[in-house]
Amino acid sequence: MSEFFTVYTPADAWALFCRHFTPSLRTQRIATADALERVLAETLTAPHDLPEFPRATVDGYAVAASDTYGASPGLPAYLQVVGEVPMGRAAQITLGVGEAALVHTGGMIPPGADAVVMVENTQTVAADAIEVLRPVAEGENMVQVGEDIRRGATVLEAGRILRPQEIGGLVALGITAITVAARPRVAILSTGDEVVPPDRPVQPGQVRDINSYTLAALVRRAGGEPLLYGIIPDDRTALEEAARRAHAEADMVILSAGSSVSYRDMSVAVIDGLGAPGVLVHGLSVRPGKPTIIAVCAGKPVFGLPGNPVSAMVIFELVAAPAIRLLLGAQPGLRGQVQARLARNVASAPGREDYVQVRLEAREDGWWAVPVLGKSNLIYTLVNADGVVQVPLDAGGLREGTPVTVTLY
Amino acid sequence: MSEFFTVYTPADAWALFCRHFTPSLRTQRIATADALERVLAETLTAPHDLPEFPRATVDGYAVAASDTYGASPGLPAYLQVVGEVPMGRAAQITLGVGEAALVHTGGMIPPGADAVVMVENTQTVAADAIEVLRPVAEGENMVQVGEDIRRGATVLEAGRILRPQEIGGLVALGITAITVAARPRVAILSTGDEVVPPDRPVQPGQVRDINSYTLAALVRRAGGEPLLYGIIPDDRTALEEAARRAHAEADMVILSAGSSVSYRDMSVAVIDGLGAPGVLVHGLSVRPGKPTIIAVCAGKPVFGLPGNPVSAMVIFELVAAPAIRLLLGAQPGLRGQVQARLARNVASAPGREDYVQVRLEAREDGWWAVPVLGKSNLIYTLVNADGVVQVPLDAGGLREGTPVTVTLY
Repeated sequence: MSEFFTVYTPADAWALFCRHFTPSLRTQRIATADALERVLAETLTAPHDLPEFPRATVDGYAVAASDTYGASPGLPAYLQVVGEVPMGRAAQITLGVGEAALVHTGGMIPPGADAVVMVENTQTVAADAIEVLRPVAEGENMVQVGEDIRRGATVLEAGRILRPQEIGGLVALGITAITVAARPRVAILSTGDEVVPPDRPVQPGQVRDINSYTLAALVRRAGGEPLLYGIIPDDRTALEEAARRAHAEADMVILSAGSSVSYRDMSVAVIDGLGAPGVLVHGLSVRPGKPTIIAVCAGKPVFGLPGNPVSAMVIFELVAAPAIRLLLGAQPGLRGQVQARLARNVASAPGREDYVQVRLEAREDGWWAVPVLGKSNLIYTLVNADGVVQVPLDAGGLREGTPVTVTLY
Repeated sequence: MSEFFTVYTPADAWALFCRHFTPSLRTQRIATADALERVLAETLTAPHDLPEFPRATVDGYAVAASDTYGASPGLPAYLQVVGEVPMGRAAQITLGVGEAALVHTGGMIPPGADAVVMVENTQTVAADAIEVLRPVAEGENMVQVGEDIRRGATVLEAGRILRPQEIGGLVALGITAITVAARPRVAILSTGDEVVPPDRPVQPGQVRDINSYTLAALVRRAGGEPLLYGIIPDDRTALEEAARRAHAEADMVILSAGSSVSYRDMSVAVIDGLGAPGVLVHGLSVRPGKPTIIAVCAGKPVFGLPGNPVSAMVIFELVAAPAIRLLLGAQPGLRGQVQARLARNVASAPGREDYVQVRLEAREDGWWAVPVLGKSNLIYTLVNADGVVQVPLDAGGLREGTPVTVTLY
């Protein structure tokens, strides 16, 4: 029952992990329309200018700006209307001096024009003549060729997480199929003789398998594809066989370990057997989540997460989610955060990073982060939390009223 | 070409909309494991205590706390070990005075015990005897029956958006199937003679249909199911027919209208024809997005969004996304936000809410929100933005350095 393992800070542990892990990206080709929240795996350049022709941004008259200089209601500029540019067609007109063409929002600006007068600033004086009541500057009320994006410019770089507007931007350029990162397959193994599947009745002494399902949802949210390997009995051979199969079939393996020392020792031995370099870290200076195992086995990340639901989630976000991002080749994204003030003192031992579950409370003077009471063994500690506050390694705790950043779940 | 419509503030427009719209919730029954980010449509109570038996949270010995009072390394408490509680089984032992039982993390605490001594604080003195070196308090190192959640307590209320931990919490109670809100079907119609499908070559004067795809992704992200009705020609009969079909088949209709005045007038007439009360709002005091149409037709929301991509997205988040949340019966969620300081002066006319697209820049003194240059006609204005800053109705602009809340996309 050795409890003696080197405890790493999260930063050191992650650096060690990164030194031993070289992610290899699997990709797939999909329709741009289906790519919401996927990660782009190629750097794309614009095949043409956007727009490809100068466009009106208002309803009005395309003109040469110089023909309107000095125009006012008292002394309007008189222009001959030589035609209309129909929507969706190339302008067939070329404007001469003193001429104007009716254009609609989004329509093409004809050659000879370099601005658009809003219809509200004109007055029809004859079937084919208008008076312009205000001058327009060159380029006013129009979009230039390539103003949205220039031909050959980088549209999006590999690693970009695609939001609705990225999909729109690609479609605008006719890029209707793209190469994205395939979802990393993340195997999840639960262990523990007390753990039973959630759809079966529980006997005294048994608990339902929470972590497989919480972790599967976390994997999905991080962009991966969870593969559930079920509950492995407390038996070294069974765990070895399941771990070997998972390691062969998936891109990453997560052991949701039974939390007793003997389980952990067994997990370490089994993980080490999956390939070199094996276990890199056994123990993080984090609360909750100290008994974490971080390993790279034959090129694939393997994590042993603590059995407590709160610890499992904290450690997942700390190491497994970033590892999934590496497998996706994703640029670091902005996570949702809320600035708040801490509603109670929070104690923390120096040399340890604490992750405190908090509920957000809107008070008159802004958001307050109220630490959620409840042990890390309790899933409802997480259910009652809106997010998490990190107490830095050597802060020795945080006082009530301290401004904190709440990372939303 | 009437430009004369009453302009509402967003708050007034939303209040008017809510007075005329009574959402009817469609539901479906699904596996809890598949419910990530779905909206719960029933209020659930705990069918039993969680946990159902007292559990150890450490490896050690279950004891009566009173048997350890005063124990110290110099004067340890001597206890008889009467057995071990195997994992996953009911404890078969009942402790008498001066007795202890070996327990593992997560294991059941036997009757007669009310605390657990960590194994590190004991010393084995015989095959069946230990010395306890430190006293434990009643309840220490264990979880009580119902400490996670009590039988009959409300687990989750209808309207809750399900995160990974909610899925875990339900599974923990054996709730493996739940009733959730069905995804609202949101019809998207694009109009404009200049608009062509993205997979076809464009001719001079034509542009690809950006908004159908951006809006579809926005609908998906808001929890709805987009139904694309394609590009409707600039023809009143064609638009009427398509709108009527969409209104019959979907729970909500979005017209991504051509942006010229004549298109807008046609949209208003067509929407009014879909049923009472018809168009409620035509014009919002918002930039970008003024020419917005808000309607309720025969019980279903119908929105006419401006054709500009930036306007369309701003207005979608302002009215369409909240309407989807109403159709889902979802409680208001916390959106991701970042507190930042404005990197440039932003002008705004009083009496108008401005939505400014910003890029976040990490500087030494924290986040700065840099307004993205670029017209609201340009999709890459959105692509280059991390989020949006709201300039309140009568602020008359914001000065450089002002603290602002950036709502992330």
